[in-house]
Amino acid sequence: MKNEIRILGVDDAPFNKFKDKNVLIIGTIFRGGSWLDGILSTKVKVDGNDSTKKLIEMVNKCKFKPQIQCIILDGIAFGGFNIIDIDELNKKTKIPVIIVIRRMPDLKKIKTTLKKLGKEKKYKLIEKAGEVHKVGKIYIQLNGVTVENAKEIIRISCTRSLLPESIRVAHIIAAGIKLGESKGKA
Amino acid sequence: MKNEIRILGVDDAPFNKFKDKNVLIIGTIFRGGSWLDGILSTKVKVDGNDSTKKLIEMVNKCKFKPQIQCIILDGIAFGGFNIIDIDELNKKTKIPVIIVIRRMPDLKKIKTTLKKLGKEKKYKLIEKAGEVHKVGKIYIQLNGVTVENAKEIIRISCTRSLLPESIRVAHIIAAGIKLGESKGKA
Repeated sequence: MKNEIRILGVDDAPFNKFKDKNVLIIGTIFRGGSWLDGILSTKVKVDGNDSTKKLIEMVNKCKFKPQIQCIILDGIAFGGFNIIDIDELNKKTKIPVIIVIRRMPDLKKIKTTLKKLGKEKKYKLIEKAGEVHKVGKIYIQLNGVTVENAKEIIRISCTRSLLPESIRVAHIIAAGIKLGESKGKA
Repeated sequence: MKNEIRILGVDDAPFNKFKDKNVLIIGTIFRGGSWLDGILSTKVKVDGNDSTKKLIEMVNKCKFKPQIQCIILDGIAFGGFNIIDIDELNKKTKIPVIIVIRRMPDLKKIKTTLKKLGKEKKYKLIEKAGEVHKVGKIYIQLNGVTVENAKEIIRISCTRSLLPESIRVAHIIAAGIKLGESKGKA
């Protein structure tokens, strides 16, 4: 695998779940773990159901698409509980998808919360995302790529922190736009 | 001078001069020409007079300020004719300022346009920015830094293109947020 493999890393901006209807989504086009080639952006509804559709649109219409060899998402949900169907995202873009997770999620707690909200169907998307694998100090879920290749992509792209560079930078940008100054880690 | 000297690069987003009242300003905190440490953002009025004040505020309140050793601006004006007083910016932030210019500006044309708009005072800010120096294939104006040091900063920071990396990336981000996808060069 080439060190300059083009990766699209996607993260959401901070939001106020009581005030904001939409949340800003930032995609960074990175050459492996080294440098930024381009930026994509879109918006999804806070706790809505449109994140899968919006991500597919953002990817399929962009000029960088022919180069993108992997989509990395910072978690399986944007804007709170706007959960992404990674199987659908892979099928409609024909690009491998990796979800990075910093800490093992408390699935029981998420299930209980979604049940309370009457949104049990969303839990199925989380289950559908499949097995969680450990790579270094982080965890991944994947679709359309072998565990071996996914681990290699993560290794190539984590150059400045524990997270893929495309995700680190997407996080910094999203927070910097929303708050006026970037804060904290992806 | 260290290769990892912290540089703040600032550029404005594309805007529609007939529709938009404000234009998004993006600041990137870069380690020399290598990697992104943080993002700042603000807004200024299209063809307004607030860019100097807004930049000073953005710099002085940010957590990165103690590290920033140079401010690089992509041109002397943001949001059309919202011209920056680089002497004031240097005085109020105590940080050296460099303006990068890709092509030698047609100063006569700018003067005529500003005269027509009844904004001749703004032309004085352009004159006040001082002598234009050539570095490689680009031009610079400067304040609070020697020509020699400014050239060294430009050399350190131009790693991926003719422009300082902090400016290349600020441009990509600003366009990607405004248009949904980054286009063209800074």
